[in-house]
Amino acid sequence: MLSFTHNPAATLDTCLAENPPAGPVFVLTDTNTSRCCLPLLSSSQWVSGATCINIPAGDGHKNLSTLSHIWSELTSHGATRASVLINVGGGMVTDIGAFAAATFKRGIRFINIPTTLLAAVDASTGGKTGINFHNLKNEIGVFAPAEQVIISPAFFATLPHEEVLSGYGEVLKHALLDSEPHLHRVLTFAMESATAESWASLVRESVAVKEKVVEADPTERGLRKSLNLGHTAAHAFETLAMERQSPVPHGVAVAWGLVTDLVLSRLHLGMPSEALYHVADFVRTCYPAPQFDCDDYPRLLEIMAHDKKNPTFSQINFTLLRAVGEVKLDCILKPADITGALDIMRDLLGV
Amino acid sequence: MLSFTHNPAATLDTCLAENPPAGPVFVLTDTNTSRCCLPLLSSSQWVSGATCINIPAGDGHKNLSTLSHIWSELTSHGATRASVLINVGGGMVTDIGAFAAATFKRGIRFINIPTTLLAAVDASTGGKTGINFHNLKNEIGVFAPAEQVIISPAFFATLPHEEVLSGYGEVLKHALLDSEPHLHRVLTFAMESATAESWASLVRESVAVKEKVVEADPTERGLRKSLNLGHTAAHAFETLAMERQSPVPHGVAVAWGLVTDLVLSRLHLGMPSEALYHVADFVRTCYPAPQFDCDDYPRLLEIMAHDKKNPTFSQINFTLLRAVGEVKLDCILKPADITGALDIMRDLLGV
Repeated sequence: MLSFTHNPAATLDTCLAENPPAGPVFVLTDTNTSRCCLPLLSSSQWVSGATCINIPAGDGHKNLSTLSHIWSELTSHGATRASVLINVGGGMVTDIGAFAAATFKRGIRFINIPTTLLAAVDASTGGKTGINFHNLKNEIGVFAPAEQVIISPAFFATLPHEEVLSGYGEVLKHALLDSEPHLHRVLTFAMESATAESWASLVRESVAVKEKVVEADPTERGLRKSLNLGHTAAHAFETLAMERQSPVPHGVAVAWGLVTDLVLSRLHLGMPSEALYHVADFVRTCYPAPQFDCDDYPRLLEIMAHDKKNPTFSQINFTLLRAVGEVKLDCILKPADITGALDIMRDLLGV
Repeated sequence: MLSFTHNPAATLDTCLAENPPAGPVFVLTDTNTSRCCLPLLSSSQWVSGATCINIPAGDGHKNLSTLSHIWSELTSHGATRASVLINVGGGMVTDIGAFAAATFKRGIRFINIPTTLLAAVDASTGGKTGINFHNLKNEIGVFAPAEQVIISPAFFATLPHEEVLSGYGEVLKHALLDSEPHLHRVLTFAMESATAESWASLVRESVAVKEKVVEADPTERGLRKSLNLGHTAAHAFETLAMERQSPVPHGVAVAWGLVTDLVLSRLHLGMPSEALYHVADFVRTCYPAPQFDCDDYPRLLEIMAHDKKNPTFSQINFTLLRAVGEVKLDCILKPADITGALDIMRDLLGV
């Protein structure tokens, strides 16, 4: 279930009133959201009575050691099968919190309250949960939908601009999967001067694209792979950056990945060039430039070969577009095609 | 899917031929089953071509560190989403292997080949997977059914007598849940002189009881709790023994737990006394005596209060019988009732 609200505390209490928790309630935050976001929920009776579990912020902590800490806290504070875990944070918190809940005593109820644009339009919905393992993104996890996702633009006001930009990468992706008019709205949206209302309508349209896809294919047997547009390359960019101890925000990697995939779509599926150039212009103007060069291609290809979306090891699988709104799944590409596209992408982004 | 066979290698190949693995195949064994059981599977083309992951034997190793080792081996040997993990072993191997598979890249295919009577009649079927955590049994896990469970009495010949006895605890439980004639067959079965054929028919009847219950309620919302007969007490006995570094086999703890629950059933639900005395005689004759006394009751109650089957912390929940084959779920009992039953159980078992 998905709720859009300007008052997340009241919405949370209304949701829980329908099926009140019969065991202790827990709230998971990270060191940022406990400070900036939890105050917006303090009027909730359930949050004020809950045990708070606080974890270090950042994707580098989305690992087994943090997961084990969350399980320990649940155990030592008497969580039962009838407990509820409320995840308040960005995608790191909703991913790891959802995975902790889905595996604690073989699954307890959990609610996601995304506090970043990125988590609102992507991580918090759709039931993908997990942690990174051996520097591989989301290598360990399960599919487990949140009982409730409560989305509120009230939280976005707490975000630094780079965080908003990061979420915007996924907004861009959903628009590309949907339609030309949706893409136009996203490319011309006045991010910096937007009101809570205009954010709400942008996010609602964006999440609706994802929801439709996930409903048709919750465990990624087919159609859901369309959501991987931009992500084969993006995950490689992120993993490389993580290996170098200079992590790049997910949505920034997605923005670079989308341009890469649009180049591949243009070259291999004849996608009209207009969308490619509009999106590349937008990404070049709004986003930082890619932080790698052609010496990094071998390692990027190696990481892509490891991607769990590949049917067999070393076959690199892309989701591409025939046109805006027309997806082609399972495009297997050769290393030379991929490095060629990375060259063009870097040119387009002015590297 | 469940197969009974006298030739597990051939059955495995037949099963996999229907849907051949599109990624690397892995076999999980422990230090016992790699030596005693894997040879019975060596004629399988899939096993002979597989990467073997070998873990230390024993429930004490069903923990996060072993789980992390299995994930690492899968990652480093190129497992993909199209891989298959074949778990060859007792309940420890099928529980942890199934959990590793269910969470690796958000879930890969897995097949259970139980090599103990206990795993055949209990752990390997029904989709419960997991690990122990902070000395709590199966505290972390998910519900995930095996694609295939291949049961063969061929493996039971490799078992020491105590292992057979351990499995027999669950055989007894299924009979109590089922009917008087089933119970009679189980109490008069000539364990030591039984042929592979008579084992096969006993196991088939036993597993059928579990399958029927699990099919009706896979995630333990209601009816499946009937399978917890004997287990609230059994888990406490096991946990206590584990804390003292002198672990007791699961099925032995279940045998003691069944007698405890039959005492409670007699006292609180007026169950006819005949089944209680027959089962107590059988357990006293065949099983070792309980290894605890009344000084341990406070700790046993504490452990029971932590059991994930309880609706809220400190309400201790039992599954009891009105008569053989007539289950009453969700019986909440007071500490004094429980310690009273433990006294009678110890008397009946001649402690």
